[in-house]
Amino acid sequence: AVDKGVDFANYFCTYAYLYHQKEMLSDRVRMDAYYDAIFKNKHHFIGKTVLDVGTGSGILAIWSAQAGARKVYAVEATKMSEHARSLVKANNLQEVVEVIEGSIEDITLPEKVDVIISEWMGYFLLRESMFDSVICARDRWLKPTGVMYPSHARMWLAPIRSRLGEQKMNDYEASMEDWYCFLNDTGTHYGVDMSVLSKPFSEEQERYYLQTALWNNLHPHQVIGSAAIVKEIDCLTATVDDILEVRSNISSSINVCGTRLNGFGGWFDVHFRGRREDPAHAEIELTTAPSVDGGTHWGQQVFLLHPQISVDEGDNINVSFSMTRSKENHRLMEMDLDCEICQPLGKQLQAFRKKFYID
Amino acid sequence: AVDKGVDFANYFCTYAYLYHQKEMLSDRVRMDAYYDAIFKNKHHFIGKTVLDVGTGSGILAIWSAQAGARKVYAVEATKMSEHARSLVKANNLQEVVEVIEGSIEDITLPEKVDVIISEWMGYFLLRESMFDSVICARDRWLKPTGVMYPSHARMWLAPIRSRLGEQKMNDYEASMEDWYCFLNDTGTHYGVDMSVLSKPFSEEQERYYLQTALWNNLHPHQVIGSAAIVKEIDCLTATVDDILEVRSNISSSINVCGTRLNGFGGWFDVHFRGRREDPAHAEIELTTAPSVDGGTHWGQQVFLLHPQISVDEGDNINVSFSMTRSKENHRLMEMDLDCEICQPLGKQLQAFRKKFYID
Ligand SMILES: Nc1ncnc2c1ncn2[C@@H]1O[C@H](CSCC[C@H](N)C(=O)O)[C@@H](O)[C@H]1O
Ligand SMILES: Nc1ncnc2c1ncn2[C@@H]1O[C@H](CSCC[C@H](N)C(=O)O)[C@@H](O)[C@H]1O
Repeated sequence: AVDKGVDFANYFCTYAYLYHQKEMLSDRVRMDAYYDAIFKNKHHFIGKTVLDVGTGSGILAIWSAQAGARKVYAVEATKMSEHARSLVKANNLQEVVEVIEGSIEDITLPEKVDVIISEWMGYFLLRESMFDSVICARDRWLKPTGVMYPSHARMWLAPIRSRLGEQKMNDYEASMEDWYCFLNDTGTHYGVDMSVLSKPFSEEQERYYLQTALWNNLHPHQVIGSAAIVKEIDCLTATVDDILEVRSNISSSINVCGTRLNGFGGWFDVHFRGRREDPAHAEIELTTAPSVDGGTHWGQQVFLLHPQISVDEGDNINVSFSMTRSKENHRLMEMDLDCEICQPLGKQLQAFRKKFYID
Repeated sequence: AVDKGVDFANYFCTYAYLYHQKEMLSDRVRMDAYYDAIFKNKHHFIGKTVLDVGTGSGILAIWSAQAGARKVYAVEATKMSEHARSLVKANNLQEVVEVIEGSIEDITLPEKVDVIISEWMGYFLLRESMFDSVICARDRWLKPTGVMYPSHARMWLAPIRSRLGEQKMNDYEASMEDWYCFLNDTGTHYGVDMSVLSKPFSEEQERYYLQTALWNNLHPHQVIGSAAIVKEIDCLTATVDDILEVRSNISSSINVCGTRLNGFGGWFDVHFRGRREDPAHAEIELTTAPSVDGGTHWGQQVFLLHPQISVDEGDNINVSFSMTRSKENHRLMEMDLDCEICQPLGKQLQAFRKKFYID
């Protein structure tokens, strides 16, 4: 069971800052996608009841009301709810939008809703584990005929090249050099031999510099092979069990000749398609894939390999992918990649296994 | 009451990293002071029992043993205890030093001790509120004849000049300019008027940029008036009530002519004097005052005033100082300064009140 106080200290606290909400509200790709999803599909909103799970500043609830919703329940766990409430009022929507402060898991609504809208996606889709809360909301409050916004989500992985690998390896090596100076000083000046801590220190630094996923906005040129779908989620039917662990076998084929493999980039996209019986008029996509024009605040998660590996056009990378939640904090992830690189004719060039942390 | 899980998430977690322990172990001023305090006062250690409150890497426990202690109890709340244990073993002191994993508040010892040693000092002395734990240990485990290491502590405040004031004001203003662009964009592109959030946003940013104490290693030249003692603590007798709130009226006289007052610097020192009936042979001081040669990892805490104030040699600054713990997190502090600046003959130049946060 999750300790609520700890969860607040670790997770919710940042969302209580307008500065952080503003970062999300300034993400044009994100904003345009939700805006279009709502306003190009007004039929899903006009006269309908809507639940916004994690309303933050209240933006999605306000748009839903502006698009014609009869009633919008805007639920927010943090004190941001107070700002959301005043924003609703300032935009004269207090008759339609009801802001409720509380965890979606704890609150009750007076009725079931036609639409659940939420911006729940974390880095590489599932970091933050907020989709659990959306599932909970859906199972309790969505009418059998209801629609999810977004309706679908996918995780992607692709081989990349990046100078970050070198940089992080340098940082790691500099840190270890510094450690050995420190060992020497501590021995000479203070009479204590700390060399027994070298191994745990190097493991700690390795985890920090080399095994922790990095935030980065990759350029499409850095993607050197086909991107593969790691996971597909139907937001209307997925269960928490479906996303507790993500396992899949994927394969990517290098499409750049004579290049280096520095690791993998991970990202996600979501779609707003409505429901089979009640589809969107305009299907909207929100993608966080590498893009020439700057990308999103999510960027991509970069998983680095050391040392780099020479690969050629046509080589295949087979990855057995597994992602689980960290035991210490269910909102963080651990990832295991079992990789095999093969030449076009099948000859195996290399095989290795590496663990990463999405912190 | 403090939620232990939350306290771990907010506070203890950083101490579980060797990287962080190494930062403290690399602080020469800190290390030399404790080293000298122990090895120049071996009479306090030879054949004695010692309790190290928050042993971290184990360094103070190991030194106590090397100085001749019969038995050292080394208590550490985090998993760092495991590294401490292996360090003790690697230095062949496992017969003397017993590492105990647990909060000092929770554990029991088989006997009372002659010496309590601890490095409990946070920024501006009391941040982290770890001295509470030392008091608890003292009241439960120190013999009536026992000695505290350190034995005394003091908080200091002094008027300073610093370019940080300008910089932070610029940062704040840039952030607000950005906000107004954001407001404009959100109105035009997304049809929502967010101007009602301008005030809370500016308050949030003001608190962040202008009211939060800054870590800085000041140069002594930046101190423009006499430093005043805000609080003196006798570690043998102080109670938690004595440090829950710190209130005092202090006065500083400007000793630089025609200069500007940009704020205040706060720091601390501690002394190792033993006990009146059992004094130190060599009294050692550990000071974190501004110093020409780089200072300590504590630096000083800088409290900025905006705008700067012109002051002259002989002007007096009278400050009514009050520091309390933050309601949300007992390890963080809030500070109120009621200031009055007077000319040598007593004419008041300015009076103002300002709140700061030590986060
Ligand atoms: N279980 C839960 N109950 C209520 N709010 C939650 C929640 N889990 C996360 N949240 C809130 O959900 C928000 C996600 S960020 C998205 C904010 C807003 N909908 C927007 O699109 O701009 C945060 O403000 C967070 O505090
Ligand atoms: N109540 C408590 N019980 C046990 N350990 C505590 C504690 N409060 C703080 N600590 C530990 O005290 C240490 C303070 S830092 C000092 C470490 C070491 N004595 C040195 O001088 O290098 C941290 O490792 C922290 O985890």
